[in-house]
This record gives sequence, structure tokens and C-alpha cells, in this order.
Amino acid sequence: MTEKQVQAYVAECRDRVFSHIKIFLKSKCAGLPPEMARIIADYPYRRGKALRPAMLMMFCDAYGGDRGPALRVAANYQLSEDWGLGRDDLIDGSELRRGKPTLHRLYGLPKTVVALDMLHTFVFDMLHSYCRLGSKYAEIHDIFSEASAVTFGGQHLDLCSREVPLAEFTPAAFRRIAERKTAYYTAAVPCLLGAAMAGRRDVYPAIKRFAEPLGVAFQIIDDVLDVQNEGGGKFGKEPGNDIRERKRTLLASLAYRALPRAKARRLAAFYSSSRPAARAEVAEIRGWLFESGAVAGCRAEAARLTRRALALFDRDLYPGMRAPYRELPRAFMRLLLERTA
Amino acid sequence: MTEKQVQAYVAECRDRVFSHIKIFLKSKCAGLPPEMARIIADYPYRRGKALRPAMLMMFCDAYGGDRGPALRVAANYQLSEDWGLGRDDLIDGSELRRGKPTLHRLYGLPKTVVALDMLHTFVFDMLHSYCRLGSKYAEIHDIFSEASAVTFGGQHLDLCSREVPLAEFTPAAFRRIAERKTAYYTAAVPCLLGAAMAGRRDVYPAIKRFAEPLGVAFQIIDDVLDVQNEGGGKFGKEPGNDIRERKRTLLASLAYRALPRAKARRLAAFYSSSRPAARAEVAEIRGWLFESGAVAGCRAEAARLTRRALALFDRDLYPGMRAPYRELPRAFMRLLLERTA
Repeated sequence: MTEKQVQAYVAECRDRVFSHIKIFLKSKCAGLPPEMARIIADYPYRRGKALRPAMLMMFCDAYGGDRGPALRVAANYQLSEDWGLGRDDLIDGSELRRGKPTLHRLYGLPKTVVALDMLHTFVFDMLHSYCRLGSKYAEIHDIFSEASAVTFGGQHLDLCSREVPLAEFTPAAFRRIAERKTAYYTAAVPCLLGAAMAGRRDVYPAIKRFAEPLGVAFQIIDDVLDVQNEGGGKFGKEPGNDIRERKRTLLASLAYRALPRAKARRLAAFYSSSRPAARAEVAEIRGWLFESGAVAGCRAEAARLTRRALALFDRDLYPGMRAPYRELPRAFMRLLLERTA
Repeated sequence: MTEKQVQAYVAECRDRVFSHIKIFLKSKCAGLPPEMARIIADYPYRRGKALRPAMLMMFCDAYGGDRGPALRVAANYQLSEDWGLGRDDLIDGSELRRGKPTLHRLYGLPKTVVALDMLHTFVFDMLHSYCRLGSKYAEIHDIFSEASAVTFGGQHLDLCSREVPLAEFTPAAFRRIAERKTAYYTAAVPCLLGAAMAGRRDVYPAIKRFAEPLGVAFQIIDDVLDVQNEGGGKFGKEPGNDIRERKRTLLASLAYRALPRAKARRLAAFYSSSRPAARAEVAEIRGWLFESGAVAGCRAEAARLTRRALALFDRDLYPGMRAPYRELPRAFMRLLLERTA
């Protein structure tokens, strides 16, 4: 399977997903105040990369599931992602998303909360009334519900981690949170949904095992890309965004452990402060993350986790999948983990 | 039907609803971080009056529906109310709810948003996995979805109304928003759910007709009680809460139209300002609402709407309902509209 073939598969899936989202939102928003409809459709119409829907479809195809309803579920999952980004931005007080101001910057908190709650309701409604799931509805509903509980629980732990000194935020603490907050939602759930659409409950345990290191690797690379981002626009966020928001990343944890005493203390003080971060300060911290070797350390850890995920995939999942589709997830994972934006 | 009998019915329904909520939350929160579970259960455990669940059960009983699953749906509706109060408080920046600090005051915005989103997910999950709806699930799901769209749309319009001068906030504008934001959710939906649990789709149009004036009357009385509240604690909010939050109420609209020019101008300036309201200022505005005759005007309008709702109920719904249950909604409505807290 060539890189080009994978990219064509992902691109086609993305187009179909967005056309479902467009049709669904158009019909659901018809009776709403026009400004509210604009807020709801804002992030979906900024069109994300739709990587999770692609992974879902790969697993569905590899297990021979029915593509029609699976594409609708993939669209549903992308819509829940667009909802989730809006609330993440609100929680983190972020400024930019996909290169434009965030929802709450554009429309203020009250209208953003109302529109996001409407969108959250639409996500559940789409699953029920648009996805044509028939007898699979209960199963898909349950996967969604479990995904929410795992992810929200992880997000709460992430918020708690911001309340403790950086010294206590160990690589193990990072891993615990990432497994729950990102890995499950980003890696396990799309694969579970794809397998579910093919009626393959038997592979759930193997999916969860392989997706955990994959998802954590994905998160680490996301954090590395955030700190490498020079603000050229293709990343769609401000440079040094995670530093400014004082996100507890593996980068920060490793840097604290590697930097000389005085700098480590200043790093910890920065991460425990609550006053707005100055641009120069963010630039200085960013420099430390590189010079401490934390960036290189994160890349090495991500590579290790990726190898582990691929080995588990090859051992437990690949043999039971259909050719040629089973080449897709493998090639896709490599692309994902080598991405630069 | 005596007042005591109605109160006993409501009290019993309330107890059962809360015991369902308790069982459901206990099982759902088991895997969550303990602090998150506390935030989720905070408002539900403050135990509201559960008036909407009572109305739901009255309609179910009056049409001979199955009580077991209906009580679970009633609990589900109360849980969605508890969720909604949390987000309303966040949107309005409120300080107190049911006599205690609001969620975002206690736990901060980020953790409150995460916990409320989890609770919102639980509401959908409860409907699917706890309510034992069987073949009625799709119908109930659709009523919930429609209720959300109507209510959130109304809430958006309400937020927009705060951006225009008080002069443009006419009694007709109030009515349009109240019909959409409160009336549907407070009055129509509980009755629709009750009728749905008895398989009576045929009465939906009559329910919507009678519930509209009832719900608007309920909102007007709520607003009147808020301004009459002396802060003695039984109301559970600060005195002058709506004034402080500059809510556009029928009271404010009528007062603006009745006050002498100079005071009306100052009233309008207050409602268009965005700086925090001083205690003395709130007290002064409160005095004007009384002296303008707006409080009396609101009471008269609520009485007129109540008479209209009761007449429609008597004509279109009462005759098709079972004795003695059909006496309940009528007696309950009178109690609701004569309430003082």
C-alpha cells in the first residue's frame, strides 16, 4: 500500500464525512435562530483532518462491515470531535483553532455554551435518527457512552494535574492521563466503532490493547508539534500555545527532570503561576524544552510506543483482517506518527 | 381533590424520582474521579421541587400509562433539569442556586464544564439504558430532541435580547422568548412525555395549545417571585438576582413603559450597562418595578394566561382523562400559579 493510496482513501473518507455533516446540520439547524446555526456550524465547516473517521472506516473495511451506515457513524464521530474542540477551547481559554479565532472569542461565552449544548444534543440525535443503525444502535450508543466517561474522566484528571507542582507531574502521571483523556478517544474508539459496524465484538480487547500505546504516542507527537510550531499558519494555533496555557505535557515533565536546578525551579514556577504569560517568557520556556533534550526524549518515547502498537496490531489484528484493507491502518499509523503538522 | 392530596401526590413522586436518580448516578459515577462525581451529583442532591416530573406523572396517570417506566422518564427529566440549571448558572454568572453557591463558584469553570458535559451525556444514556422504554424509546427520544432545539433556540434569543435597548424589548418580544425558552420545556414537554408513556400521540396538539399560556404564566410568576424575594433563604437565590443579572423580564418591559420619562431612561441605561451592579442600585431598580405598577401588571397577565390555560385544559384534555387523576393537573396548576416561593 503506497502513501498516495492511503492519502486518497483518507481524502475520500473526509469528503464523504463532511457531506453527511453538511446535510445533517442543514436539516437540523433549519428552525434555529440564524446566528445560533452559524455558531453550531462554525467548527464543522472549518473542516478538520478527519483522521478518526478515516481510522473508523479502515477498521470497518478491514472487517467487511457495511460502508453506508459506517460512513454516517464516522460523520457522527467527527461532529462529536468538532463539538469537543469547542468546549476544550472554552475550558482552556484558547485563542485560535484551525487558524481562526475560537468560538468563545468570536461569539462570547454565553452564546457559545448554548450553541455547543445544542451541538452535543445533535450528536446524540444524529446517532439515533440519521445513522440508520437498526439493531446496531444499542452497541454504538454504548461505545459512545463509555468513550465519554473515559475521556471526561481523563479531562478532569488533567485539570487536577494543573493544580499540583510540576515536580509531581511525573512521566507516569502524564501517561495515566493521556491513556484516559486522549488515547481512548483518539485511537481506541474509532477502531471499536469500525469493528462494531462489522459485528466484531470479539476483537474489542485486542483493539484496546494496541490502541493505548498508539493513542499516547499520538498525544506526545501532538505536544511536540505544538512546541515546534513556528506560527506559519498551517498548524492553526498560536506558536507556543500549550506553554501559554501551561498544559502539563510529557515535554514539560521531562524538561523539569533534565534541566539544571535553577532553570527547573523557574520552569516549575512558570507552570504553577496563574497570571497571563508574556510572549518573551513563552519563548524562553520554549527554548528550554529544546535545550533540555525533552523534545528528543518525547520523540524517542513516541517511537517506542508506536513500535509497540504496530507489533500488537500485527500480532493480534492484522491476521484476521481482509486484504488489501488490512494494509491501510498500518500505513496510516506510520503516516500519523511521522506527521509534521 | 384537596390541596393536601395534590401535595401528597407531588411529594411521593418527588421521592421516587430522587431515588431513581440516586441509583442511576451511583452506578454511573463509580468509575469517575471522586471530585468529578461530587460535582455531577451536587445539584441533583440539592433536590429541586421536581414539579415537572410531577406534571409528567399526572398526565401519565390521567391517560392510564405504565407507571414504572414513566417514573424513570420523570427522573430522567429531572436530571436534565439539574444539568440545565448548572449551565444556566454558568451562562448567567449566577452566585447562588437552591441556597448554596453555584457549581462554577464552587469548582471553577473548567471542572464545571467537564462535569456538566458528563451529566448531559448521562441524561441521554439514562434514557437509553435505564428507562426501560422498549418500543417507546424512539418517541421519547424525539420529544427530548425537539424540546432541546426549542429551548436552546429560545435561550439564544434571550441572550440576543440582552444586546438591544430595553425600549425594543416589548411585551410581545418577552412572550416570543418565554414561549420558546421556558413554556415549552416547563409545561409542554412534561405533559407530552406523560401522554407519550400512555401511547397518546393524538393529544399532543391540544397539550401544546394549553401548555403555552401555562408556561408563560409560570415564567412571569417566577420573575415576580424573584423580585419579591427578600433573601430570607427559602428562595435559594440572592434578592434582586434577576435585576443584578439584567435579565429581560416582562417586569422590566412593563416598568419601562409605565415609569416617568427620566426614570425610564435610567432604567434602560441600567439594563444596557455591562459593569457590575451595585447593591444600592439593584435596590433602587427593585423599588421602581413595584412603584411603576409592573409587579401588579405581571400578576394580572399571569392570571389571564392561567385562566386561558385552564379553559383550554378543561375543554380539550379533561374530558378524555381518567377520574380521579384528571383532577390532579387542574389542582396542581392552581397551586403552581398561586405559589409564593
